[in-house]
Amino acid sequence: MLPCFELAPPAPDLSAPLVACLDGKTKPPGSLGRLEALAMQIGQVLGSTAPDPGAAHLLVCAGDHGALRDPRGRGLSAYPAEVTWQMVENFLAGGAAINVLAREGGMTLHIADCGVAHDFGAREGLLDFKIAHGTASWFDGPAMSAADCAQALDNGARLARSLAARGVRVLGFGEMGIGNTASASLLTQLLTGADMADCVGRGTGLDDAALARKTRLLAGLAAGYRGPVDAFSLLAAFGGFEIATLVGAMLGAAQCRMLLLIDGFISSAAALVAQTHAPALRHYAVFSHRSQERGHAIQLDHLQARPLLDLDLRLGEGSGAALAWPLVRAAAAILRDMASFDSAGVSKA
Amino acid sequence: MLPCFELAPPAPDLSAPLVACLDGKTKPPGSLGRLEALAMQIGQVLGSTAPDPGAAHLLVCAGDHGALRDPRGRGLSAYPAEVTWQMVENFLAGGAAINVLAREGGMTLHIADCGVAHDFGAREGLLDFKIAHGTASWFDGPAMSAADCAQALDNGARLARSLAARGVRVLGFGEMGIGNTASASLLTQLLTGADMADCVGRGTGLDDAALARKTRLLAGLAAGYRGPVDAFSLLAAFGGFEIATLVGAMLGAAQCRMLLLIDGFISSAAALVAQTHAPALRHYAVFSHRSQERGHAIQLDHLQARPLLDLDLRLGEGSGAALAWPLVRAAAAILRDMASFDSAGVSKA
Repeated sequence: MLPCFELAPPAPDLSAPLVACLDGKTKPPGSLGRLEALAMQIGQVLGSTAPDPGAAHLLVCAGDHGALRDPRGRGLSAYPAEVTWQMVENFLAGGAAINVLAREGGMTLHIADCGVAHDFGAREGLLDFKIAHGTASWFDGPAMSAADCAQALDNGARLARSLAARGVRVLGFGEMGIGNTASASLLTQLLTGADMADCVGRGTGLDDAALARKTRLLAGLAAGYRGPVDAFSLLAAFGGFEIATLVGAMLGAAQCRMLLLIDGFISSAAALVAQTHAPALRHYAVFSHRSQERGHAIQLDHLQARPLLDLDLRLGEGSGAALAWPLVRAAAAILRDMASFDSAGVSKA
Repeated sequence: MLPCFELAPPAPDLSAPLVACLDGKTKPPGSLGRLEALAMQIGQVLGSTAPDPGAAHLLVCAGDHGALRDPRGRGLSAYPAEVTWQMVENFLAGGAAINVLAREGGMTLHIADCGVAHDFGAREGLLDFKIAHGTASWFDGPAMSAADCAQALDNGARLARSLAARGVRVLGFGEMGIGNTASASLLTQLLTGADMADCVGRGTGLDDAALARKTRLLAGLAAGYRGPVDAFSLLAAFGGFEIATLVGAMLGAAQCRMLLLIDGFISSAAALVAQTHAPALRHYAVFSHRSQERGHAIQLDHLQARPLLDLDLRLGEGSGAALAWPLVRAAAAILRDMASFDSAGVSKA
């Protein structure tokens, strides 16, 4: 049985006091541009005209994809599937891009094994959310059962709630899973109705021929899908365990009135599932960056989101979320710490 | 006599080892997009494949503009000229946007009175680079004499050299000066040859009528200019003391092989003067953001620069430079701290 997450917009509505606060600061009105819109969103979500986001946390969910082990899925990724677990080891050792970027930004990392096809054993610093050794191949049926999908959603939601209980107010989302751009493309096409060619990209580095083959293959799968088309059913049909765990974490975090930092194509596929299920998610979600992966533009258009950064990233792991976090801190600090025209004795226009 | 700054590209050329270093990191090649290009630039300027930028400093130069006191200059700014000194007081008290943003980013601020029409007296935390109580009005002749321009350039260059001697390796640039968008528009038009209408913007918030009047007025001034057209002569003719000090600081910092963080329209006008004078400046300059001020696009095109951020800012003060600094830190950390495929035992494509 798939669950249902109830989600309301942040209340009470603080728009009026937030606008008054920003316009009273010692700067021409609106001169901090999109940082002011971001400050408004932070103020609304955190419920304050002097918001303190505190220290941000970042959840990196890892999982493997059965379709990659299927002979029909050969060539979907430029990297072998074992890179998923090898990169989890790299995360645990502190040497991956997301470790470096989180350290620079002062974010606390949580690495979760949501379904990697590898036995890590009990490991310090690794959250054991493993559902199975990779999903089933979606060439022959759903990637996961409804019960497993519900379990992954619950794993994510429970983690978010436990962080909220510890006072965490900002949560970023990243992932690792060789082959998961294929899952994200399928979810994106089925949830937005866009052409599959616009939903598929080069992932970790496919050449033209491999890209064309991936597009044809996924278009055929999406066209042949006859199951239910609600967000969670599609998630079970084509998602990965890492994506499902992220969906649950996003919804759980929003329910706890946390600010969500969404990363790139895979993380936004999770946000697309979450927001389709609970449209109020958009109030809580900050889209960090515009990925170079082709399908991200379709997701952002559908979600009516304008991301903060545009740096041609296509790495995942939460790298864009970590890079956007200083902008969130800065926007909150503008509201919280800047002097007003009155307090500073500065003349107005 | 106007000075001459000699400037060479960073040497030796580390392109090959930097590319090898980046491509060996545990990520698909190129997947960190523009952060990798930034890392290359940082490595070149700081002369290392494991660059440590240390703590960045930010120089905010303030000055007043005689043209604003001229009856013909009425309406060039939405704010009264006294806001320049009031904002300097706000900087000293720590309440302005740049104070807040520098604090969040961990940057050390230097506030310089380069020619504010106000007596501050000796004040802790205020660099006394004052040349005069504002420039002369450029309606009747040059804004400053060659000697005063040379003095302002030297003030900036000496400060940069003293910071370099203290080990500072990254210097950002910001400014405050009511009316200085007019100076920046004149410099931009005369140095790029673009239409004045494309070089003029709303500054702190002009309405359509005031914008049209500002454009007509500046177009007439530029068309009537008969003086020498080298970068420093134009700087003396139409610059502000704050702009001239920034030009000197940029050139002095680049000579000391520092990385320069350029802010928005005014700061980029200074960079345009500096780079026209010494084309090798482009190797050292990072353009932080794309300002909403109209003429910034012309400057960036002319300098063939693609800024890091696009947040619709139009505040100045160095605000965009402060917001871009975490990206510079992140890019350096990628080079310095990320594991390689070999060291982490991760399979390649």
